[in-house]
Order: sequence, then C-alpha cells, then structure tokens
Amino acid sequence: MSTTALVLIDRPAAGQTGTGPAFRVVDPGAPALRVSNLAAVRGDGIFETAAIRDGVVQAAAAHRERFARSAQICDLPRPDDEVYAQAVAAGLDQLDDASDAFVKYVLVRGDEQDDPQRPLGWAYLAPSADYTTVRRDGLAAVTLSRGFALAEARHSPWLLLGAKTLSYAVNQAVVREAVRRGAQEVVLVSTDGFVLEGPTSTLVARLGDELVTPRPDSGILAGTTQRSIFDLAGGLGLRTAVRDVRVQELAGADGLWLVSSVRLAVPLHTLDGQGVRVDAVLTEAFNAGLIARTS
Amino acid sequence: MSTTALVLIDRPAAGQTGTGPAFRVVDPGAPALRVSNLAAVRGDGIFETAAIRDGVVQAAAAHRERFARSAQICDLPRPDDEVYAQAVAAGLDQLDDASDAFVKYVLVRGDEQDDPQRPLGWAYLAPSADYTTVRRDGLAAVTLSRGFALAEARHSPWLLLGAKTLSYAVNQAVVREAVRRGAQEVVLVSTDGFVLEGPTSTLVARLGDELVTPRPDSGILAGTTQRSIFDLAGGLGLRTAVRDVRVQELAGADGLWLVSSVRLAVPLHTLDGQGVRVDAVLTEAFNAGLIARTS
Repeated sequence: MSTTALVLIDRPAAGQTGTGPAFRVVDPGAPALRVSNLAAVRGDGIFETAAIRDGVVQAAAAHRERFARSAQICDLPRPDDEVYAQAVAAGLDQLDDASDAFVKYVLVRGDEQDDPQRPLGWAYLAPSADYTTVRRDGLAAVTLSRGFALAEARHSPWLLLGAKTLSYAVNQAVVREAVRRGAQEVVLVSTDGFVLEGPTSTLVARLGDELVTPRPDSGILAGTTQRSIFDLAGGLGLRTAVRDVRVQELAGADGLWLVSSVRLAVPLHTLDGQGVRVDAVLTEAFNAGLIARTS
Repeated sequence: MSTTALVLIDRPAAGQTGTGPAFRVVDPGAPALRVSNLAAVRGDGIFETAAIRDGVVQAAAAHRERFARSAQICDLPRPDDEVYAQAVAAGLDQLDDASDAFVKYVLVRGDEQDDPQRPLGWAYLAPSADYTTVRRDGLAAVTLSRGFALAEARHSPWLLLGAKTLSYAVNQAVVREAVRRGAQEVVLVSTDGFVLEGPTSTLVARLGDELVTPRPDSGILAGTTQRSIFDLAGGLGLRTAVRDVRVQELAGADGLWLVSSVRLAVPLHTLDGQGVRVDAVLTEAFNAGLIARTS
C-alpha cells in the first residue's frame, strides 16, 4: 500500500500478443521509461485523466471512448479496454486511500531503441489535490488565440486537434501567459472568433436558461465532465446546446465554467479583466452532482 | 565502451545549484525517467539533435544558440552550455565509434512527483543511420497545412512556434499523412500560402542562381544545416536569400532540398505528384561540404 501507484502496461493494444503478463505493478517513484520512449522524445502518445471517488473511476465509459477516439486520430492501435481496466484495478489495490484520487492512463506509440511501433502504456494513480476553494471562489481567465480558424480541424486531421496527446507544451505555455496577464486560466479561441476550450478543461457557458458548450468537432476535446453536467441540467431546470459559440457571447453570459475531471466545475469570476457573474448555488449543484457520480 | 551512450544531466540550467555531480553516465538501455517527468506527460521540454563526425559535434555553436532560443520561448531557464558540452564529451568517451553518430540533448522543465520547476536533462548518443541512398535518389513530398497563417507566430508567442519542443506528435502525424498519399516527406505550409519547413528539416529552394529559405521568425525553426549550406553557397556560385516564400514559387524551382543535421541535404524529386528537378552535382557538393565541417 502506498500514496501513489504505477502500473506499467506491456500489452496496451487490443489483440496485441506477447509472452509475460499484460501489465505489472512497479515502484511509482523509480525510473520506468527509457529516454528513447516516444512519450519522452516526441510526445507521441495519448492519455486520459479520470477522477476516482470511493474506489470508483468516474465517467469511466466516457474516458474509454475518448481514449479510443484519440488513438484513432493518432493512427495508434485501439487500446485494450479490458487490460486498462485491470491495470487501473491493480493500481487501486495499491492505494492507501482511494476516496478522492485520480488515475492518468497513457498509450505510447513505442520506444525508438526497441520497436517504435510496439505500443507501451502505463496507469499512474495519486491522491487529488483539494480544489474546494477554487470551486467556490472561481478564477480569472484570459482569452488567447489557439492560432487556427474553426474549420481547420475538419480540413487538417494531421494537426491532431481533437486528440488528447502527450504533446501538451502549448497547453502549459498558455497558462504561463495567463499568469503574466494577472490571471490563472485560459479560454482558447479560434482566429475567426469562436470559443474553443481551456488548456485542460471544457468551457460551459450559461446563457439565460441554457447551458452552451462548443462543438467537439471544432478542434477541441469532447468533454467528459461537460457531458456529466449536461446530464444534470434537466434536473436543474436548464436546457443544453452543443454549438459553435462566438467569443462575444461570453460577455453576456450568466455564468462561465471551466470543467474537468479532477478539478470539476470551476467558475470564472473574470474574463479578460471584465467581471463575470458567479452563481454559487448552481456551481455547488454542478459539483455535488459530479462528486455523486458512481460510474 | 558501447554502441550508444546516455548521460543524465541533473543540473542543466545555468546557475543551478545542488550537491553531487552536474551529470552522470548511465546505462542507455535502462529506464532513466519517471512517468511523472514532464517530458513524458506533457512534452514540456526542448531538444537539439546534432551530427557527430570523427568525434566532433558539427555546427555545435548554432545548435547551442537555437537551444537557448527554444528555452527562452518556452520560459525555461537558460541551459548551461558548459555542462551540456561536458556531458556530450562524457558520452563521446563511451561510444565505440564516433565517426558518424549523433547526439540528442534535452532540457525538461521538471518532474511532477519531485519539483515540476527543477529542470532536468539528458544527452543520448548513437550511431547515425546510413542516408547515402536517400541523399542521392531523393524523396517525394507533399505540402500539408500547418493550420496557421504566417503572421500568427509573431502575434501568439504562446504557441511556441519557433521552439524545438518535445511536443512533436504533429510532426510525426504529418509524415504518416504523407505516406498515405504515396510520399515520404512533407513541406508544411501556412494557411495563407507560404512555405514553412519540413517536420524535422528546413526547406531550401534553388530559384535560378539563388538559394532561398523561409524566414525563421515565421513560426519555424532557424535551420542549423540550412545556415551551413548558405555558408557554402558563395563558393558554389550561388546567392542566398532568407525571405517569405510563396508555395507557388516551389513549382518553378530549380531544386528543392529538405536539410537537417543528421540526414543532411536530401533532394525532393516530387512535390504533390509533380516532378522536381534533381541536381545531383549540387546535392553532392552540399553534402560533401556539410560532412567536411570540423565545428
């Protein structure tokens, strides 16, 4: 038993053959990857991060589905759902405390020293940070250009815009730029004036009695947490819409949230220096509903 | 002595303090990175790959300069040139054969389990593949959109477009798209019709008696090998120009090359299905000059 857990997955792809076990529990603090691993030298792999509540992976099916979609966009073999589920379960068995944790699971194309086309993977589990304060108080965000026009993702699939890859240097850089501008978060926007997503989250806007989020085929990830919030909406008297969202619409919003698997729904109190209405009751309802998910 | 060598760099940044040696030679085949290393989970680091001929790193100063520039764009601390030089020298001491090899050296932002802001690095050395045939016969390339307009790099530095980061998933994906189209290489282009670069190389075009290459401030890397070729140009009776290059200009070129540190100058014999003139004598002169570099 330990605080964190690591499971190396030697046969992460569906139908992959080989001798030895498909995965093995290893010391999470020890070096596990060679410098020739394509995760480390090319960011050439995909991942998912899912919340764990009371030993259960939340939105597990939605994460699996998106993982498979990322693999398809990146021309990676389909991940073996059963192997990943077993590897995560083996990791959970190691954890001291699985009441409020997360798992990050990864599929990498291969290792340059070995076989760059033989996939590798891992699942890493650790306790979640405490996001209570930020869920209540919210954050300031700035809009930053993601550099492409909305239609580009549909025309240029080789830009991998809908895949959750390990090539996240830009996702990190935009947050540093936000900090330089006195904010903590980012709403990425297209060059033609449409809302995209946060660097590690999905944007949800309340416009009147409707929750709105950008279409996932416009170069952004399909939000697993956004989907859970939209499932809650009816019970909260709100309608939902997935559509192209113009940046100007955000100025008139009755609420803005960046939503993600572990931090959950975080309200924005400021966007580009302008105040945004924070609805504490609705935010609380979102997060209570998200925390209560049992699958 | 061995075929490959690996040197882990514990203090890669200028002025970084700490106990113990700044670097250490380790087994290149053994795991060296934790899964929490930001190279592996975020592609959040920078690298250079330089050729080694007869034990000497070629264009060492140009690589060092570009490495420092990448660090600056990525808000990483300045790499310690002296530590990297010593680490590479220690790696060279391990190599069986340093007559035709390469070194890849890396600077990573940190390790999430440890300190995500304490930089790490490594230098990996290995023999080069034999590129004789491809340098002579050339390759077919296709043009593919990089998704952004030429001016975007100047307006949006957080897109890290001029930095050589470890987030190379797209650079790999475009080559797979080329293969699907019956080619082997890619000339990336902007959405407004300008030539950018190859996914791991710089484009050089011959137009009449002038060698032309795109400006490095337009979202591409400053080519170290391109610079060496331009240094050779005068002796070959050619002028040089670094300027914005329209995609249409390539159709009328008297020669096109993708140039890079290890593969050197490779002519394109086909671009988007159209034949391109291959000048065997000039290509040979480029590569002889590149191979002969003693610094």
